[in-house]
Amino acid sequence: MTALDTLIKSLTRLPGIGPKSASRMAYHLIKTDKSYNLALAEAIATIGEKIFPCSICGSFTETDPCPICSDTGRDRSLICVVEEPQDVLTIQASGAYTGLYHVLGGAISPLDGVGPEHLSFAKLLKRIDEGSFGELIIATNPTEEGDTTALYIRHLLKDHSEISITRLASGLPIGGDLEYADRITLARSLRGRVRF
Amino acid sequence: MTALDTLIKSLTRLPGIGPKSASRMAYHLIKTDKSYNLALAEAIATIGEKIFPCSICGSFTETDPCPICSDTGRDRSLICVVEEPQDVLTIQASGAYTGLYHVLGGAISPLDGVGPEHLSFAKLLKRIDEGSFGELIIATNPTEEGDTTALYIRHLLKDHSEISITRLASGLPIGGDLEYADRITLARSLRGRVRF
Repeated sequence: MTALDTLIKSLTRLPGIGPKSASRMAYHLIKTDKSYNLALAEAIATIGEKIFPCSICGSFTETDPCPICSDTGRDRSLICVVEEPQDVLTIQASGAYTGLYHVLGGAISPLDGVGPEHLSFAKLLKRIDEGSFGELIIATNPTEEGDTTALYIRHLLKDHSEISITRLASGLPIGGDLEYADRITLARSLRGRVRF
Repeated sequence: MTALDTLIKSLTRLPGIGPKSASRMAYHLIKTDKSYNLALAEAIATIGEKIFPCSICGSFTETDPCPICSDTGRDRSLICVVEEPQDVLTIQASGAYTGLYHVLGGAISPLDGVGPEHLSFAKLLKRIDEGSFGELIIATNPTEEGDTTALYIRHLLKDHSEISITRLASGLPIGGDLEYADRITLARSLRGRVRF
């Protein structure tokens, strides 16, 4: 196998990259200046060492605990439960949330062999027992697996009446067009209609 | 800037990779096994040293001359002129060509500031003078720039009556549908119609 084949084969293992994209990337890498290739190679080789899950919330971090868990300025009565570490960054980027997070590591999906025992529910219960949370926001994906996981969390906390459990609103995306909304989203946004 | 930001920023410089794809790739790289990351990093870091243009034809190679130029089994009376090194691999993959190649390094494009002096025409003429080619196949892209380049090659070889100059056929793509063919492709395939 030539050096080019080796590179293309490695690149196709990345998510969303097929043989054609990998070839384009490889040809680009042959022509770019060497310093860029070395910087990219260095970043890829070391990312696994530099970034790891926070021991408290499970989101990606370079320090333990992560900057969010150690930030004394954040609202410690709020905890937002998400599926994946990248969801934390997505919600942070919205700028609309100032509380803490908890990363489950996925969603309950019996078909994929993911049961509650594979997700960090035990750690979540421990945090709730030790903390003083007033509200838990469920921010799992609006999918069947995310819905199942949300129901499971509600069941898990049925004896914690001190915590109000909420879930991200589902509805029409801002800037979207009613005409292009799918049936299920439209039905949900009707059911969840709010006083204007 | 965090290690994650650095990696994402480097990845977005690859062709066809926007911020969303780069994030997905970065998250994937955090989670994959370290050996894959190291192999990919190594392939990226060294590709520029391992692969270089063939001193004869200009296509990408790991040895000089390239395997095609040094292959005595190929038809040395045929030379196929292409724009970019990757075009050689595309034509090779078709399995329909057994001659030699010549890579111009682009196409004539006055708007982009690319004149004939920026492409390897001098080298092409020298190869033609020293070789014994009977046919030169122009395989530049079926674009305005490719057409201009093709006309320039014909002009360049006007004193070489010993060489017949041909060009790749334009027309309907195989497996395509007449209904979806664009006007220009359809017009070309009509003009270039062949006896059946």
